[in-house]
Amino acid sequence: MNTRKTIAVMTGGGDAPGLNAVIRAIVKQGVTQLGWRVIGLEDSFDGLLESPMRFIDFDRDQVRGILTMGGTILGTTNHGDPFTFKTADGKTTDRSGEVMERLKLLGVEGLIAIGGDGSMAICSRLMRDHGLPVVGVPKTIDNDIPGTEITFGFDTAAAFATEAVDRLHATAEAHERVMVLEVMGRHAGHLALASGLGGGADVILIPEIPFRWEPVLGKLMRRRAHKRHFSIVVVAEGASPHGGAILQRINPGGSRSLGGIGEHVADEIARRTGLETRCTVLGHLQRGGTPTPHDRVLASRMGHHAVELVRTGAWGQMVAVRQNRMESVDLAWLLTQTSRQLPLDDDGIATARSIGICFGDETE
Amino acid sequence: MNTRKTIAVMTGGGDAPGLNAVIRAIVKQGVTQLGWRVIGLEDSFDGLLESPMRFIDFDRDQVRGILTMGGTILGTTNHGDPFTFKTADGKTTDRSGEVMERLKLLGVEGLIAIGGDGSMAICSRLMRDHGLPVVGVPKTIDNDIPGTEITFGFDTAAAFATEAVDRLHATAEAHERVMVLEVMGRHAGHLALASGLGGGADVILIPEIPFRWEPVLGKLMRRRAHKRHFSIVVVAEGASPHGGAILQRINPGGSRSLGGIGEHVADEIARRTGLETRCTVLGHLQRGGTPTPHDRVLASRMGHHAVELVRTGAWGQMVAVRQNRMESVDLAWLLTQTSRQLPLDDDGIATARSIGICFGDETE
Amino acid sequence: MNTRKTIAVMTGGGDAPGLNAVIRAIVKQGVTQLGWRVIGLEDSFDGLLESPMRFIDFDRDQVRGILTMGGTILGTTNHGDPFTFKTADGKTTDRSGEVMERLKLLGVEGLIAIGGDGSMAICSRLMRDHGLPVVGVPKTIDNDIPGTEITFGFDTAAAFATEAVDRLHATAEAHERVMVLEVMGRHAGHLALASGLGGGADVILIPEIPFRWEPVLGKLMRRRAHKRHFSIVVVAEGASPHGGAILQRINPGGSRSLGGIGEHVADEIARRTGLETRCTVLGHLQRGGTPTPHDRVLASRMGHHAVELVRTGAWGQMVAVRQNRMESVDLAWLLTQTSRQLPLDDDGIATARSIGICFGDETE
Amino acid sequence: MNTRKTIAVMTGGGDAPGLNAVIRAIVKQGVTQLGWRVIGLEDSFDGLLESPMRFIDFDRDQVRGILTMGGTILGTTNHGDPFTFKTADGKTTDRSGEVMERLKLLGVEGLIAIGGDGSMAICSRLMRDHGLPVVGVPKTIDNDIPGTEITFGFDTAAAFATEAVDRLHATAEAHERVMVLEVMGRHAGHLALASGLGGGADVILIPEIPFRWEPVLGKLMRRRAHKRHFSIVVVAEGASPHGGAILQRINPGGSRSLGGIGEHVADEIARRTGLETRCTVLGHLQRGGTPTPHDRVLASRMGHHAVELVRTGAWGQMVAVRQNRMESVDLAWLLTQTSRQLPLDDDGIATARSIGICFGDETE
Repeated sequence: MNTRKTIAVMTGGGDAPGLNAVIRAIVKQGVTQLGWRVIGLEDSFDGLLESPMRFIDFDRDQVRGILTMGGTILGTTNHGDPFTFKTADGKTTDRSGEVMERLKLLGVEGLIAIGGDGSMAICSRLMRDHGLPVVGVPKTIDNDIPGTEITFGFDTAAAFATEAVDRLHATAEAHERVMVLEVMGRHAGHLALASGLGGGADVILIPEIPFRWEPVLGKLMRRRAHKRHFSIVVVAEGASPHGGAILQRINPGGSRSLGGIGEHVADEIARRTGLETRCTVLGHLQRGGTPTPHDRVLASRMGHHAVELVRTGAWGQMVAVRQNRMESVDLAWLLTQTSRQLPLDDDGIATARSIGICFGDETE
Repeated sequence: MNTRKTIAVMTGGGDAPGLNAVIRAIVKQGVTQLGWRVIGLEDSFDGLLESPMRFIDFDRDQVRGILTMGGTILGTTNHGDPFTFKTADGKTTDRSGEVMERLKLLGVEGLIAIGGDGSMAICSRLMRDHGLPVVGVPKTIDNDIPGTEITFGFDTAAAFATEAVDRLHATAEAHERVMVLEVMGRHAGHLALASGLGGGADVILIPEIPFRWEPVLGKLMRRRAHKRHFSIVVVAEGASPHGGAILQRINPGGSRSLGGIGEHVADEIARRTGLETRCTVLGHLQRGGTPTPHDRVLASRMGHHAVELVRTGAWGQMVAVRQNRMESVDLAWLLTQTSRQLPLDDDGIATARSIGICFGDETE
Repeated sequence: MNTRKTIAVMTGGGDAPGLNAVIRAIVKQGVTQLGWRVIGLEDSFDGLLESPMRFIDFDRDQVRGILTMGGTILGTTNHGDPFTFKTADGKTTDRSGEVMERLKLLGVEGLIAIGGDGSMAICSRLMRDHGLPVVGVPKTIDNDIPGTEITFGFDTAAAFATEAVDRLHATAEAHERVMVLEVMGRHAGHLALASGLGGGADVILIPEIPFRWEPVLGKLMRRRAHKRHFSIVVVAEGASPHGGAILQRINPGGSRSLGGIGEHVADEIARRTGLETRCTVLGHLQRGGTPTPHDRVLASRMGHHAVELVRTGAWGQMVAVRQNRMESVDLAWLLTQTSRQLPLDDDGIATARSIGICFGDETE
Repeated sequence: MNTRKTIAVMTGGGDAPGLNAVIRAIVKQGVTQLGWRVIGLEDSFDGLLESPMRFIDFDRDQVRGILTMGGTILGTTNHGDPFTFKTADGKTTDRSGEVMERLKLLGVEGLIAIGGDGSMAICSRLMRDHGLPVVGVPKTIDNDIPGTEITFGFDTAAAFATEAVDRLHATAEAHERVMVLEVMGRHAGHLALASGLGGGADVILIPEIPFRWEPVLGKLMRRRAHKRHFSIVVVAEGASPHGGAILQRINPGGSRSLGGIGEHVADEIARRTGLETRCTVLGHLQRGGTPTPHDRVLASRMGHHAVELVRTGAWGQMVAVRQNRMESVDLAWLLTQTSRQLPLDDDGIATARSIGICFGDETE
């Protein structure tokens, strides 16, 4: 009989660079140092609901070399929420009871769930309705999960988006063009601000600040008048004109990218100013890649803190960074919150304005 | 009176990483070592036709620090061919005579033109019709200029496209998806082959090999059957299905990206297999960026060889790399050639096939 | 007569990636937005003391394109402290009065000094003894300036050092070796911890934790016994064995690298274990390079905040980041402090220990 | 009974980025496409001579994800040449017969040896003395193996060395220093030329051109006189002053780096000019790292061609690139050759000279 303490770990939702570093830290501390059994659920809860069940009974060798790998060795879900499991015939069914049974069969005492707000909601419900002890680790490239100042993956995505701005600079300058770059951020402009400020953009459009066309076009025309024959506009997915509805994209970042806000902004600029304008949508490239050293360290620290929460029995908590310290927030509280947006008095926004970057809400 | 030998240099067409390294090598050798006057024409011939004329009378300090810069410090044209100069009212007029007059005013004895086949054609005509001595330096990210085995900018673009494949790997694997990446290459598949082979793609579609859907879909479904739950498809802009017309894109890589071959391939795969499929169009990101060390060396060597051609009076020649040596080809011959495509017995294609990569022409 | 408000800006001490981003933010806000005159002192105070004086009277065009550049366009000092100015004959003389006179000749009302603790001490003395209004911006790759949680340049240096660990992994594994990497950090282990944790080192030696040989050698031999035939040891410059004096290096990171702690650790490991051991000293490579996007944003924010301090008359303050907000600390207080070290209960250290990384203070 | 054709593959000597890409191509084509058995010998011949023997009986899954990995999954030797096998007591013994017996036990029909001139010599002797069919794949970061124009790993090492020059530029400029960078290249200057030309060095010292101090110091002093207050000197390991003996380094790139040519050049420059001078030795960092896309493609093509040589029975040949085509050269011929050096009329050297780079052999 196995008498070791047994916990499960899963990754849910879209992937983010650093997921494997979290898993590695959990396994290294859990298995090697504390002597626990750590079971990795494959494809979120999907693998658990198949027959045979798919999971990894981790030994320390299975996390060798994954610190620098993007993606997640555990995979993420296709079927989504087990409470509303999508079946082959297109219907949904509640399989949350089965999830609990199978976790029990594996002797799982608690779950570390690494995911976004969707995963946190599912796991909170498993805790509330079925009594599953859960600890959460926040994951979002948009950096908009409430309660934590930063999440892993953001620095990597921001670094890539900034590199994209750098690249567009060269080609915009050579051709006297306006280059529009659409980056992630449906509800928050963290990524657009970081890459626009770090790459030296001229205009940054973010969900927190509904923009008007006049200041944007004015900025572009003034640059033209001052013989700056190119401009860079960074647009967050969720940016929208003042008073306008947010544009819908059928598959975000996906094959039907028509109608995205980036294309819309590029079309309007070209139409209203006559300037040659091009749009680039970064899409899935932002999710992939080797995590930056910054994100590897942050993800490792978060994985370690998750184990500490399990070890001290602090179930129902999500790891959170506050004032650069590892703390935690209550999952129940978290689910009452909306996306963490940039505060309008953010000093990054003030810095950008002081450098002359336009957000589209300027008067006169 | 200026008695120094005077040559002009210009960059035409789309920019490519390494243009500045060519300019730097020409100026350093021409001005510093040979004592020539080197005049950089701004925005191709556009600046020459304005009043006052826009040009740089190079001293060696003006090329400091540009070795690593993408784009071109000289800019490229908006008005295009001076033989069919586009005027403000939308008409065209022949201003080639003015180009010649103004070059004479500046004392220019000959021109080094760095550009693609379009620029080579214009400069050849200036040589033929007006007697302007010209030396060409080939520039194309697609690597499809005839007569030379390689051009600068290709390695940089291939490196970025390969990095994009690397990034998609991580996210494709996490999500069990087919990821389609559209890269440059209207007439030739050099870039698609390099990034697909270097990044470990599963399917590569290139203009040289019209593809059929069956082998492509078969490859993807076989991977699925073997529990490889993701696949990467690299598509050159100019790839097309067997018997099908090449899809037209209004502004290549630009704001109206709808209808590109990448989107088309992604849509068809999704429709015919039911696999979750996403498309990413690299577009202008491929043109920008710091040139790789490889391209900085190659561009410097080409700039040096252009000066050697001028010094020895070899006008009417374009710098060419053959068997890794700097040589030259006749511009008149060049203009009779079509784009340099991958030979079907290319060992890179054979290597890719041996690794299991599908090109869409496989039988059974 | 010039009636514009005039401030000077200087960079002192060793360079750090991001210095140019600070300068750019100061000039863009100061000159363009506020209408100030901003004078850049060349080579710290050295250029001011020459005849003619060397300085840049900034207009906005002079900071174009410097956001991504490493180093500093203003240069740093060779003569050092003007209170103890080194003359050609090897003596020192107090030229601080001349500094003041010349600043007065230029109409300078106050100085923004970007530098390390040395520069802060000099500028504080200019303020105290001569009444020069000063605002400081902290600069240190070691990240050990008191009062601020982080400084620009650190992320860039940590990213490079981590990449070095990544590179050594590959070659260590192939050859079954112990690889020792010496990184910066005379008084603090921030950089060693970040790169060791981010790169997956096995041993990290830092100034905060005097190490004993037994745990270090034990760790390496245990890895050997477990068939891990390679190990990576990251050593901060200022690490030292328990009870041992800190090893002196004549020119740190410089041509006389003999006797550095890295070499010493490598020699001892090789001698005591018989394992093949190699040492690499990163040295000056850590200072250079394009700043990471993270550091470009941080440096821009710090430059903006320095202008805000000037604008509000908060002289005698140094910009500081606390809880990720831009604040400031008193320069006089700063100079009473010692280097900011890692606290022994730092969660990064705890994370590293939980992953199995050895710090050399382990018992049994 | 196993009736599949069985070949072995091994990697010998120092590692180089791209080794895993060669192995992957061999296994993918050999196992998956041709149905062969491919046996990977661990740690060169070392693993074969242990009990139990250490080797990998490859299936295609064992080469997943290794395309981008530096190092070699097979490891390299510690005991070296089996003809002069180093025993624990410090003696040597001929174990080549045992190698042959054990290869026969495994049913090996032939060997693909990936290695440098040392490995090629050993394998040629196994072929000559024992009749082992061998195909070679050249591996050298120095790029100095005769018969082939280029080898994988060189582009990656050159890219890193160039990045190092870029980094030193920033810090040299800020501090008004001479920075000396020692790169690999005991017998040939390919790497020093590529990184010096690509990074914009001022002086390049290579084994092919014995240097005198006068032109080197003159170049540095002229730059000083022209207000260029920094200089970069790239030195190949094997460079030496005219008439001087090549300096011996006890452990090249290793812990006893004292006495390397880089340090020597830095010391002499400092002593003779009084300029502040620093030396950086890249050492093992040049071997590691993810192979560049260029090297991944080249390594894959070489692996493919090795299989083609085996398939067509072209034993005794080494894969070689000539005029960018995959060909082969006779191993017996190869062993009569000396290291492939830069020809003195190399156009890269001519380019460097035309840009003003000093090689130390200039007159007047």
